[in-house]
Amino acid sequence: MKSFCVIGLGRFGSSVVKSLVKNGHEVVAIDTDAKKIDDYKDIATHVMIADATDERVLKNVEIDKFNGVVVAIGRNVQASILTTMIVIEAGAKNVVAKATTDVQIKVLSKIGADKIIQPEKDAGDRVADNLVHPDISEYLDLSDDYSFAKIAVRNIRFDGLNLFQANLTQEYHVNVAFVKKADGTATIGKHNTKIGLGDVLYVVGTKEDIENFSEII
Amino acid sequence: MKSFCVIGLGRFGSSVVKSLVKNGHEVVAIDTDAKKIDDYKDIATHVMIADATDERVLKNVEIDKFNGVVVAIGRNVQASILTTMIVIEAGAKNVVAKATTDVQIKVLSKIGADKIIQPEKDAGDRVADNLVHPDISEYLDLSDDYSFAKIAVRNIRFDGLNLFQANLTQEYHVNVAFVKKADGTATIGKHNTKIGLGDVLYVVGTKEDIENFSEII
Amino acid sequence: MKSFCVIGLGRFGSSVVKSLVKNGHEVVAIDTDAKKIDDYKDIATHVMIADATDERVLKNVEIDKFNGVVVAIGRNVQASILTTMIVIEAGAKNVVAKATTDVQIKVLSKIGADKIIQPEKDAGDRVADNLVHPDISEYLDLSDDYSFAKIAVRNIRFDGLNLFQANLTQEYHVNVAFVKKADGTATIGKHNTKIGLGDVLYVVGTKEDIENFSEII
Amino acid sequence: MKSFCVIGLGRFGSSVVKSLVKNGHEVVAIDTDAKKIDDYKDIATHVMIADATDERVLKNVEIDKFNGVVVAIGRNVQASILTTMIVIEAGAKNVVAKATTDVQIKVLSKIGADKIIQPEKDAGDRVADNLVHPDISEYLDLSDDYSFAKIAVRNIRFDGLNLFQANLTQEYHVNVAFVKKADGTATIGKHNTKIGLGDVLYVVGTKEDIENFSEII
Amino acid sequence: MKSFCVIGLGRFGSSVVKSLVKNGHEVVAIDTDAKKIDDYKDIATHVMIADATDERVLKNVEIDKFNGVVVAIGRNVQASILTTMIVIEAGAKNVVAKATTDVQIKVLSKIGADKIIQPEKDAGDRVADNLVHPDISEYLDLSDDYSFAKIAVRNIRFDGLNLFQANLTQEYHVNVAFVKKADGTATIGKHNTKIGLGDVLYVVGTKEDIENFSEII
Amino acid sequence: MKSFCVIGLGRFGSSVVKSLVKNGHEVVAIDTDAKKIDDYKDIATHVMIADATDERVLKNVEIDKFNGVVVAIGRNVQASILTTMIVIEAGAKNVVAKATTDVQIKVLSKIGADKIIQPEKDAGDRVADNLVHPDISEYLDLSDDYSFAKIAVRNIRFDGLNLFQANLTQEYHVNVAFVKKADGTATIGKHNTKIGLGDVLYVVGTKEDIENFSEII
Amino acid sequence: MKSFCVIGLGRFGSSVVKSLVKNGHEVVAIDTDAKKIDDYKDIATHVMIADATDERVLKNVEIDKFNGVVVAIGRNVQASILTTMIVIEAGAKNVVAKATTDVQIKVLSKIGADKIIQPEKDAGDRVADNLVHPDISEYLDLSDDYSFAKIAVRNIRFDGLNLFQANLTQEYHVNVAFVKKADGTATIGKHNTKIGLGDVLYVVGTKEDIENFSEII
Amino acid sequence: MKSFCVIGLGRFGSSVVKSLVKNGHEVVAIDTDAKKIDDYKDIATHVMIADATDERVLKNVEIDKFNGVVVAIGRNVQASILTTMIVIEAGAKNVVAKATTDVQIKVLSKIGADKIIQPEKDAGDRVADNLVHPDISEYLDLSDDYSFAKIAVRNIRFDGLNLFQANLTQEYHVNVAFVKKADGTATIGKHNTKIGLGDVLYVVGTKEDIENFSEII
Repeated sequence: MKSFCVIGLGRFGSSVVKSLVKNGHEVVAIDTDAKKIDDYKDIATHVMIADATDERVLKNVEIDKFNGVVVAIGRNVQASILTTMIVIEAGAKNVVAKATTDVQIKVLSKIGADKIIQPEKDAGDRVADNLVHPDISEYLDLSDDYSFAKIAVRNIRFDGLNLFQANLTQEYHVNVAFVKKADGTATIGKHNTKIGLGDVLYVVGTKEDIENFSEII
Repeated sequence: MKSFCVIGLGRFGSSVVKSLVKNGHEVVAIDTDAKKIDDYKDIATHVMIADATDERVLKNVEIDKFNGVVVAIGRNVQASILTTMIVIEAGAKNVVAKATTDVQIKVLSKIGADKIIQPEKDAGDRVADNLVHPDISEYLDLSDDYSFAKIAVRNIRFDGLNLFQANLTQEYHVNVAFVKKADGTATIGKHNTKIGLGDVLYVVGTKEDIENFSEII
Repeated sequence: MKSFCVIGLGRFGSSVVKSLVKNGHEVVAIDTDAKKIDDYKDIATHVMIADATDERVLKNVEIDKFNGVVVAIGRNVQASILTTMIVIEAGAKNVVAKATTDVQIKVLSKIGADKIIQPEKDAGDRVADNLVHPDISEYLDLSDDYSFAKIAVRNIRFDGLNLFQANLTQEYHVNVAFVKKADGTATIGKHNTKIGLGDVLYVVGTKEDIENFSEII
Repeated sequence: MKSFCVIGLGRFGSSVVKSLVKNGHEVVAIDTDAKKIDDYKDIATHVMIADATDERVLKNVEIDKFNGVVVAIGRNVQASILTTMIVIEAGAKNVVAKATTDVQIKVLSKIGADKIIQPEKDAGDRVADNLVHPDISEYLDLSDDYSFAKIAVRNIRFDGLNLFQANLTQEYHVNVAFVKKADGTATIGKHNTKIGLGDVLYVVGTKEDIENFSEII
Repeated sequence: MKSFCVIGLGRFGSSVVKSLVKNGHEVVAIDTDAKKIDDYKDIATHVMIADATDERVLKNVEIDKFNGVVVAIGRNVQASILTTMIVIEAGAKNVVAKATTDVQIKVLSKIGADKIIQPEKDAGDRVADNLVHPDISEYLDLSDDYSFAKIAVRNIRFDGLNLFQANLTQEYHVNVAFVKKADGTATIGKHNTKIGLGDVLYVVGTKEDIENFSEII
Repeated sequence: MKSFCVIGLGRFGSSVVKSLVKNGHEVVAIDTDAKKIDDYKDIATHVMIADATDERVLKNVEIDKFNGVVVAIGRNVQASILTTMIVIEAGAKNVVAKATTDVQIKVLSKIGADKIIQPEKDAGDRVADNLVHPDISEYLDLSDDYSFAKIAVRNIRFDGLNLFQANLTQEYHVNVAFVKKADGTATIGKHNTKIGLGDVLYVVGTKEDIENFSEII
Repeated sequence: MKSFCVIGLGRFGSSVVKSLVKNGHEVVAIDTDAKKIDDYKDIATHVMIADATDERVLKNVEIDKFNGVVVAIGRNVQASILTTMIVIEAGAKNVVAKATTDVQIKVLSKIGADKIIQPEKDAGDRVADNLVHPDISEYLDLSDDYSFAKIAVRNIRFDGLNLFQANLTQEYHVNVAFVKKADGTATIGKHNTKIGLGDVLYVVGTKEDIENFSEII
Repeated sequence: MKSFCVIGLGRFGSSVVKSLVKNGHEVVAIDTDAKKIDDYKDIATHVMIADATDERVLKNVEIDKFNGVVVAIGRNVQASILTTMIVIEAGAKNVVAKATTDVQIKVLSKIGADKIIQPEKDAGDRVADNLVHPDISEYLDLSDDYSFAKIAVRNIRFDGLNLFQANLTQEYHVNVAFVKKADGTATIGKHNTKIGLGDVLYVVGTKEDIENFSEII
């Protein structure tokens, strides 16, 4: 079990809190809004109504003792920057900050944030990919050339073959990394993994190869 | 080339527009804010200053002709719901709507949205995973049991082996789907793909298998 | 005795509450405004200061046990839609919702409201009719052709006749459904009902027949 | 054709305008909001962006020449009262004013309004009646004792009888004023009007008689 | 000793309260603002934090028992009118209301206020008179022709004369109603009242006569 | 004809402007509000939309050339003080300033205003007097002891006497300065002025004498 | 030990408080904002949440007993002037007031403030000087011609000389008033004061002489 | 002549602009407020209505070409930080930023500002010193021990002596750096500088020495 501090309980911050708690970690949640703190008092391990731009607050929670600190205040650029500055000055480790603009990212980076997140921008990119490839229901860029995509088997030709028989890596230059069967079971892609109509394949390949593959499968 | 309509140019919507345009598609962008429209007039194919809750607006743009429509108005729940209703009534295809609360998701689903997105919540889940597994620099849940993760090779024992020799699928039950080499090149995971110290492996496996694997690699 | 829940104590909602209580029914009234709740604590059977868009609230009042639920939040379109969604999800029966715009009506209908009311629009239609027919002091459309109207007897020729003698149905094609006598008494229209100068007749007929009738009576 | 002036284009006022215009009358619409005036410039005969509490405005439109004037400004009590005062001082005929509170009604009455309307309160009363009598789908109070109600025929016993045969006035003390047939046609209630299963009867009677009647029909 | 009720503790209302209390009368002061009420709790006989547009408030103070009621709410036209209406309906005597516009005066008059005051307008008229006649330090119109003015004696010719000797009524057609001596004493104008250099005369006459008189005295 | 400058067109300032113009004087009116300036452009001799706290404005109007300057900005204490300071610095004569609080009066006096007015307070004092003496319809304090009052003749005993015969100065110690006859004519109080029932007498005397007098006349 | 009163705890006022307390003086701090007062309750000797424009407040603190009073309310011009007026009326000594505009300075001076401060303007002047003379790291105008400046020794020629040997007053017409040695020690400028490379000299001279001097030293 | 860019025309920024222009330098002034830009269009060399947080703006003015850039936006912490970041990224030299809080100073320093100014705090320190030493009319700290102070000659014993004769450096350990004569002339402190009663001496010494000196001079 690790311990984390999440500052800001907007949609992003509260999603971090819930996710960490669900995985069995200890979370201290801080927000200026009494109502939000009240909503989370039975979810987070500890909650505090406090303004994290007040340096005394972070001294009290011993911010340098946590395994990581999330500054989940993206929209209020000023509070985001000042809180991150104070958190870092106080010796915190693994500081993740949410940003909303490019200049804010530069400032957060200069003052020493370890990781900077832009949820809306990332989601926008993903939706754009999905709109363009409606057959490929989810899509994640791994590099400029390669992507990770989710494609259903619709061609009867492949029904009942295992991955070795289907010979997809050789012919279509894609790695079938994971298979979700129509019956609800799932498995990583191995030579003897059988695929059938309606199964969903998670594949890696260049964008072009994936697109070609999505048309034949 | 396909054509899309994006309603709302906040961070999410504008990210969708830029991503679609970059991939060579035609995009009509609509927002009530003249300043935002001005910023996008050289980026989107067409821009319109208009309130999409006014039904005449969508009639003018022939909303049913697009390959997809993104209602990127999450925060203003009322405008989000009414616009989605009007867009669907007008016969639009592939309607993607951004939501911010669970009830809003239910309403959007009842009135017929094809896909509903929650950027902040999704990002929160991902950050939580990364905080817990700092060795695994990125993490994506594929199902309740299986994940997709990014792990660097740090064990000299594997340096110079190809994937067949390393025998990872057999021993650790993970599929190495993609490899980013320390020298900047990349490739999908195949039998003859060589791995070395500092290379980053993108693997699929159960959470437990991935965690075990991240400790030995 | 039946029991009802009224959410929102604006002019419309409070009029529903008073009317139901006056007829001997049990009413639970919910509003976010403490002052309004205070004003109604001696009128409604139970009152609650609560935000009905918070799903826990409706769970507490067992919203599915009432004979009917009125969502009397017209002006705040967002709260109107979300509350109606939650109320219906929670299994409520006979859900009546107040609406203010046409799109709102469509959404409320899609998510399953049993009846949708537009007070201001209805009143506007009625006032327009009365302005056009000032002799006919009240007017209600029953169908595209037929109306229900209120007309005073001003022609001495009919003074003292009963409805059979006056022969109005035969000659003017109107049904005199109800008669309010000048002396304050009232009765349904029967063959032997006597009419006199100053009595007010409530008649049904086509608009044209009523207009003709209003000129001779 | 008559001519009217409607001051205020909220939901109530705009409903009055549309209803009057639809019936072929001339309407001058006045509002302080340029956007609303723009929406109505093709609907009303004439429109004016003007503040009716400015006495010069009403002088310009010759407010005393209209067949009726509707002061459709209920929510802004001050504007409602002052406008009504100015309209009356200027010699207007048939002044109808919308009110929202009881004291406002007293003031409007003292300063001489001919008719005062409370849309939300009226609608609330009607909804309350309908909730209590779900079999009787619409309900209108004619006096303290008598009502006008809409009831469907569900008892096979009356199928195919005419009103004389059914003998409803004698036995149940109700006047069947109007009949909407299941086939879409309609007629006033006469001796030879036939009724059938699924037909909707519009009846007048005391509340008790109507309730009894609704249970046997 | 008489008793009065003053509603509204702005500058006008508070000046009424202080003036009445100073003259030994009983005053109940009502205002919605807790801070103002606190300031007056040692000045007025009784104070109440209450909204006088709430009819129950005036019932509690038995508004019909006072010798007079001052509605000192000029700026908030709506509260001014509604409060005056309620006060009058409740049977109050001698109702004085403060107004700020001409239409407001008409409404207050129609609903039955006994006296209507316009402080700013009255002060403006008086200042204008004084600016035009700087020799005449104060000025009050009694009718279209006659005024009441305050003029200092500056002509040595009148020094030491009594009013009979000065013969001002005969020669200058003014009545010297009151004399404030340079030594601080004062007296009404009588035949034997002596005047001297620097004494201030309060005279009545036509405007023209007063102006002529102000040049010779 | 004299010339004046009035800064601020609230109720007080606009009343000064109208009164001065009515008496044939030249008035320059200054206000920051374009709408007010528009309303006065046909009333004042010259109007200016300007912020008088901007020193260049007063230089342009040659503020030192006017016969008097009225700073009619009472409510905005800051603008009132700064404008008065600038006006005085610029060499203006006869500067009259409106005040609303006691401290403001001290400041205005220190910086050199020639006359300071408090309309609401003055009106409050006058209304208090009238409430206490309802027989005396108007009342003006001339000193701590003496007042000027308006009283109607209601005692038949004095009907038809002239002032010499009535002997009021001797017996009641009041000076009848002015008489408004029931027939509409008026005159200053002289020996041969006749009084009758219903005439209104304007008298000067001590408060006690006036009260006694008001009971016998 | 002296005692002071500081009214207003903005950045300027709080800096005054801290500086006075650090030097061992007694300070009463007054502000309307409870939060600020709370922050200073352990710093100032006494604190008060109070509105200093309320005359009773200053009576309670015996404002005339302090060695000095600072009215540190610059931005709210009205509160600044009224508070200063009340403080002075109450007999306070050494009244320092912060101002933000030129007219405000005139008013504060007229009503009797002993000293008037403009922090932002002063800082602006100083920054401008430093920008123009980057070699001279700080700069203070003593008169139109003379300044006080801070200049580092960079010319080897002067290294190891004492001020008498360096002969700066004679040759460059500057007085070296103070020397900060590179080793951290400091001393006033005397004949036997040695200077070396890297030492900082604080000199007085005409602007021209200082500039010339800064180029050779 | 040098050229500078000043961003923000509040009191601090405008004081910088005026001071630089007065000394003959070229200044580009940028502000988002059109009114302020208008006020400075005849003072600064160039003016721009622009939002400096928009990166394109600084590209247009070639921010890297100026001799110095002043970010005079202290109060809006967010704009202050973002603008400073963009200015520095764009390659600007000598960047001076105004700050209002301690954390803001840390951030500005981390992102690379060359100099950071706190006008209100500095002024507060200075006022505190002057309050404590009213004989010493101005006071500037040079180090923890030494100060620069302004003291008038009041002791007849020194009248007419030159600085050599007065022997102040030897006896009181102060350097008389500058002398402002009572007749308006001024000079740096030299051996032959004469001092007289009423002359003002600008001296450097330790705080204790200055205080002792101020008591005997």
